[in-house]
Amino acid sequence: MQIRTLSTLECTKLLTANRVGRLACAKEGQPYIVPFYYAHADNHLYAFSLPGKKITWMRANPLVSVQIEGHGDGRGWKSVIVNGRYEELPDRIGHKVQLDHAWSLLSRHNDWWEPGALKPETSSVAEHFPNVFFRIFIAEVSGREALAG
Amino acid sequence: MQIRTLSTLECTKLLTANRVGRLACAKEGQPYIVPFYYAHADNHLYAFSLPGKKITWMRANPLVSVQIEGHGDGRGWKSVIVNGRYEELPDRIGHKVQLDHAWSLLSRHNDWWEPGALKPETSSVAEHFPNVFFRIFIAEVSGREALAG
Repeated sequence: MQIRTLSTLECTKLLTANRVGRLACAKEGQPYIVPFYYAHADNHLYAFSLPGKKITWMRANPLVSVQIEGHGDGRGWKSVIVNGRYEELPDRIGHKVQLDHAWSLLSRHNDWWEPGALKPETSSVAEHFPNVFFRIFIAEVSGREALAG
Repeated sequence: MQIRTLSTLECTKLLTANRVGRLACAKEGQPYIVPFYYAHADNHLYAFSLPGKKITWMRANPLVSVQIEGHGDGRGWKSVIVNGRYEELPDRIGHKVQLDHAWSLLSRHNDWWEPGALKPETSSVAEHFPNVFFRIFIAEVSGREALAG
């Protein structure tokens, strides 16, 4: 098996093609990993979450790491790692375009990690929204591909 | 979709049944996630790695998080999160039983993230070993299962 480094463009394509990744935050030196769904746009990963441990931790320390995997040919694989920064988007009016974009991508999935997280009772996404809407600014991205051989 | 909490026994079974997980360490508040192969035994996850960023970071700060996923029925899934502590095992004689056990489990895989990491040139694993042999002590484990419905 041969390993090669992915270009930034290749990393970006993998981020765009995927919806599920793992997000790590940290508090006082203790990391915490959770799976999460995201939508990639404009050098950010957009996501929704119910309030909880990871939101509390990221509010206190916005430095995060995200890892995404893709399958290559046969036993091959690709892995992308993002160094990022948590940004909460509390002003839904100000970020309505991003919210609608993320919603349109993510609401197609009905296998959410947090069930009910994306089932607002009204048809208006921006109103009565129980979730935290946030994005991860992609400060740095790197990736590797293993070519089966 | 319905979510339920996994018991400690169920979490342990998932750890035992799997070989690949994601490991997060942290340095000065910045988390770092990497995929890794492990073998579960005696409340530890045993692994090998070439020296590099994650080893350097874990030597400086042994607090880590590990996340493992399993597929349930249909769209269902399971996820286990470990709060753990990095322990390096430099004394290979003193940990030969564990090393041999981890080796026997992990050397069956030929799709390593770090190619060549487990290809010592001699038949004696414990000699001339270029890798760091370490384990993650499982301080805390929790898990959730989503039942497709």
